[in-house]
Amino acid sequence: MTQSPPPVRRGRGRRPADEVRREVLRAAGELLLAEGMAGFTVEKVAALAGASRVTLHKWWPSRGALALEGYFSVVGPTLAFPDTGDIAADLTTQVRAFVRLMRDTPAGRVVPELIGQAQTDPELSAVYRERYSAPRRALAVEALERARERGQLRADVDPEVVVDQLWGACYHRLLIPDQPLTEEFAEALVANLLTGIARPRPAGSRR
Amino acid sequence: MTQSPPPVRRGRGRRPADEVRREVLRAAGELLLAEGMAGFTVEKVAALAGASRVTLHKWWPSRGALALEGYFSVVGPTLAFPDTGDIAADLTTQVRAFVRLMRDTPAGRVVPELIGQAQTDPELSAVYRERYSAPRRALAVEALERARERGQLRADVDPEVVVDQLWGACYHRLLIPDQPLTEEFAEALVANLLTGIARPRPAGSRR
Repeated sequence: MTQSPPPVRRGRGRRPADEVRREVLRAAGELLLAEGMAGFTVEKVAALAGASRVTLHKWWPSRGALALEGYFSVVGPTLAFPDTGDIAADLTTQVRAFVRLMRDTPAGRVVPELIGQAQTDPELSAVYRERYSAPRRALAVEALERARERGQLRADVDPEVVVDQLWGACYHRLLIPDQPLTEEFAEALVANLLTGIARPRPAGSRR
Repeated sequence: MTQSPPPVRRGRGRRPADEVRREVLRAAGELLLAEGMAGFTVEKVAALAGASRVTLHKWWPSRGALALEGYFSVVGPTLAFPDTGDIAADLTTQVRAFVRLMRDTPAGRVVPELIGQAQTDPELSAVYRERYSAPRRALAVEALERARERGQLRADVDPEVVVDQLWGACYHRLLIPDQPLTEEFAEALVANLLTGIARPRPAGSRR
């Protein structure tokens, strides 16, 4: 230890580690959304959060890991899974919120760039999956499993496949914008998947 | 015109324009699959097809347009839509073929790179949609509309949404490989969407 005074911590004294961690993640997520990966540096996050670069390097193994975990943290409240007990309503609410996030905020520009870059950057691809897409997928699967346990989904449905048919369908329109990403689209995704698109056979018909 | 002899045309004399066009497209598609966009040049395609660069530049406005139209042309037979009259069987056959193309051939490496690069390259994005994804989408929509006209799909189903819930779901696993792209996945996509994932209510139940 030296005799120099401790760094000024914005007048708040020494913050508990979990508070620093939360503030760093928020700063990281906001910086990613503001500047994309091109303008994202550990130094800027440290300055924004009033934390030390050494701490950040200790907690996150790479710039990408910090950026993606920060993004996961800032979009979490927007993308929360409601649990009213009505799976159709809850899925519609959540998928509409996801569509609005992609359509109306910088996430709709930053996320396609990240996924695009990940196609030729194995390290970014691994970090994207580890710190963002896999944990988000796990939250969706949990919500679907709760609905299945309540008897609202068929017992033989694989929730992992459902994730691709709801959020994956949205990513498809985001990445290959042949058709628009709208709230009506979100509603149609849930309605199609829950009730099926085949015309019901008349009672008593053989086929 | 000079007095030099005409270029050797592989002993076949002057070919009709539509034959040249077909051979150029095949050469372009095969070159793209072999080398990706990084190794794709109009010069190489011209040499492979025994055609002139001038002709190629006249017919295709850009290197990207030639590559994508060539790719559309070479995968066409593999990705044809069978029409046996049974939409469930036909969709399953087609989506499984798509999964095998992405899993077992160089397309599974080249296509994600193209989509990835398109996220930050507006010209490639436009060409990808114009020469590949929009025409492929149109073929799928036609197949779904035929099934709807036969009364196999509900009259209020939007085929454009179905495209995202079948092929879009596959692209999602291709681009963000949290879960594997398998033939079982292809089958589950079609089964989920046709019959729905909600548990049917017992007859006479109020909810």
